[in-house]
Amino acid sequence: MKTAILSIGDELLTGAVVDTNAAAISAALFGSGFRVERRLTVRDDEAEITAALQGLAERHDIVVATGGLGPTSDDVTARAAAKATDRRLILNDEALAHLRSVVPDERLRGLNEKQALLPHKCRVIPNPVGTACGFWLTHEGTLFLFLPGVPREMDRMLADTVVPLLRERFPGEERLRRRRFTLLGIEEAEVNELLKDIPQPRRGVTLAYRARFPFVEVTVRGEGEAAELFNRAQTETLKKLSDHVVAMDDETPEENVARLLRESGFTLSLAESCTGGLIAKLITDIPGSSAYFREGAVTYANEAKTRALGVPAPLIDEKGAVSSEVAMAMARGIRAASGSDLAVAVTGVAGPGGTPEKPAGTVFIALADRNGCRSKRYLFPGDRDQIRTATAYTALDWLRRRLTP
Amino acid sequence: MKTAILSIGDELLTGAVVDTNAAAISAALFGSGFRVERRLTVRDDEAEITAALQGLAERHDIVVATGGLGPTSDDVTARAAAKATDRRLILNDEALAHLRSVVPDERLRGLNEKQALLPHKCRVIPNPVGTACGFWLTHEGTLFLFLPGVPREMDRMLADTVVPLLRERFPGEERLRRRRFTLLGIEEAEVNELLKDIPQPRRGVTLAYRARFPFVEVTVRGEGEAAELFNRAQTETLKKLSDHVVAMDDETPEENVARLLRESGFTLSLAESCTGGLIAKLITDIPGSSAYFREGAVTYANEAKTRALGVPAPLIDEKGAVSSEVAMAMARGIRAASGSDLAVAVTGVAGPGGTPEKPAGTVFIALADRNGCRSKRYLFPGDRDQIRTATAYTALDWLRRRLTP
Repeated sequence: MKTAILSIGDELLTGAVVDTNAAAISAALFGSGFRVERRLTVRDDEAEITAALQGLAERHDIVVATGGLGPTSDDVTARAAAKATDRRLILNDEALAHLRSVVPDERLRGLNEKQALLPHKCRVIPNPVGTACGFWLTHEGTLFLFLPGVPREMDRMLADTVVPLLRERFPGEERLRRRRFTLLGIEEAEVNELLKDIPQPRRGVTLAYRARFPFVEVTVRGEGEAAELFNRAQTETLKKLSDHVVAMDDETPEENVARLLRESGFTLSLAESCTGGLIAKLITDIPGSSAYFREGAVTYANEAKTRALGVPAPLIDEKGAVSSEVAMAMARGIRAASGSDLAVAVTGVAGPGGTPEKPAGTVFIALADRNGCRSKRYLFPGDRDQIRTATAYTALDWLRRRLTP
Repeated sequence: MKTAILSIGDELLTGAVVDTNAAAISAALFGSGFRVERRLTVRDDEAEITAALQGLAERHDIVVATGGLGPTSDDVTARAAAKATDRRLILNDEALAHLRSVVPDERLRGLNEKQALLPHKCRVIPNPVGTACGFWLTHEGTLFLFLPGVPREMDRMLADTVVPLLRERFPGEERLRRRRFTLLGIEEAEVNELLKDIPQPRRGVTLAYRARFPFVEVTVRGEGEAAELFNRAQTETLKKLSDHVVAMDDETPEENVARLLRESGFTLSLAESCTGGLIAKLITDIPGSSAYFREGAVTYANEAKTRALGVPAPLIDEKGAVSSEVAMAMARGIRAASGSDLAVAVTGVAGPGGTPEKPAGTVFIALADRNGCRSKRYLFPGDRDQIRTATAYTALDWLRRRLTP
């Protein structure tokens, strides 16, 4: 099936917004065995969108469009879709009922009702998290699918409706197998070196690398009937890289740590300096984290380290706030104060700036448990944001390693 | 000048990589008065690239291509460029000299020399940070520019050579004016309603809306000679929306608050429950935040609220941890403990889950200063992530309002 994506929106073409939707659709389709052959981006302009839809339909069997389904006057995708497929725009009952269920009556009469004006005889793609329904229809042998441009809504509708619909309508498409490893603390070139003994290309099995800061992702893909080769390749890959694997497939590193914490029954507290609350934020991103997360102290000022964590002021004077000793005192301090089983502390120089002895990127991570406390010095490269992010995920990795049997 | 972008690469169409280059080129051109009208993405396939270049040239005066200039066999852009413009590929002296200066001799004879094979009579675009030079040429009235796909190299060449070249060749291009308002606490449809009295479209001035959770962005654009109309439109827009404007142009809401805090000379502390460190993370994202940010307490467990913030346990028992009284006690508690001028506290139900009296999204925000303390109850819609994000940015907005004269 020849597949194309049409992204619609002025904000994409002015560069105000990066088109993450196009990548999300590409990845979802690729994961289901559909290979996207081209993508096109046009303005919120009815004639442009109409011409683009017609042009793509000439060469493709499936066209997925995203954007321009909102309530305002610059959203003209539904109108263009109707024109491109020779249909009238009509008030769609199902879309209207959806709007009525999520928008207060007094506002419906105005702008929002416009969102229920869809091409005649299209089918609605439900939007469980927003006002604008999507829709799909076929015209002269091409299947057109229209999704809103809000990434959160688009993602949900893609997973809930679009992918199942495509799998159902095109059951004969080759299925791709995929296994993804998320790695921390290793660079792409090192991964390449480690995996060079796994002979490739093998028929139907491919290995792909991608740096996604602070991680490197390795994806093993298998097409068609190459199940055994795929299994062997992914087993060998895991064996070579296991020390660095912080998550697999669609699980995030923080979800992995959350699962390990939940299973362990241990409670956790955090003391953060340079990460400024980022580790606590990642931990509490996960629903149900209150079962194991007690508290976090974001001690930016030295007085806060002393008062809230009991780090002796002379120790800070002598060793510096960014030191192994202070990191350990912070971890011990928050563990004692909160009564948690585990405590992680970080202190470092996020930059910009720093000193010759402690340049930006110098970070100490410490972990305290009932057996005692240990710490390690790191030098993370990059800018402030990268240093903070690498620090936070490395701290989570200390927990993963501590909790992995 | 009608302008188009061609992004080249298999990895874009599988969704393995988000096309940030297209956004970077769009933004750089837009900032110099060139409006990108369409973008196209194709595979690393010589025939596809050739056809795409020819197709775009039919309708555009400028075509900027990115990707496919690397040393490996799947990089075929230079060959396609030659074919699309009826030229031979020849070894380009300047590109070869560049390669010789950055690549060791023993590797040059192999793959890398291929990167100096460019279309006859093209002009080189220097690459100061990598091996692959770019190039540009004109053919039948269209200016083609080719850049590598590595973002860091592409960005540099865009700024150093491409933008100056375009400004020099098209000095008469109309300059675009732009003003962006980032709004909080108002929905897209309400914005549209508020602005409906500003008559539009007016010649050369456009208003665009975009929801970017939890914000709505309104962008006023003015072309060419419509300076006065543009100024009037942006002034009227600001007047109508001023209560909700949390940032302007490229400043983020957190940068705006950081600037206000720095200017005020006040110090800040935070006490967070449902946001779990997110507010502290946003505050400390900004370099130099240690000048005003003292500390944050992420008090997830009730005992932590009592111990670290001095919230009386009977108060929590009586009113509940999610209550106006506890929010205020948290703000007063962290302010007293840290000695900061300002303190903000949040407590709420991020969900999933909740009770009939306090459903998910119920949040109390409190602010304490030397004049006392006040709090307000909110009910934020959405999922856990949205509730936390809306809470954090609303809390920052309390600071903005407190610090705005």
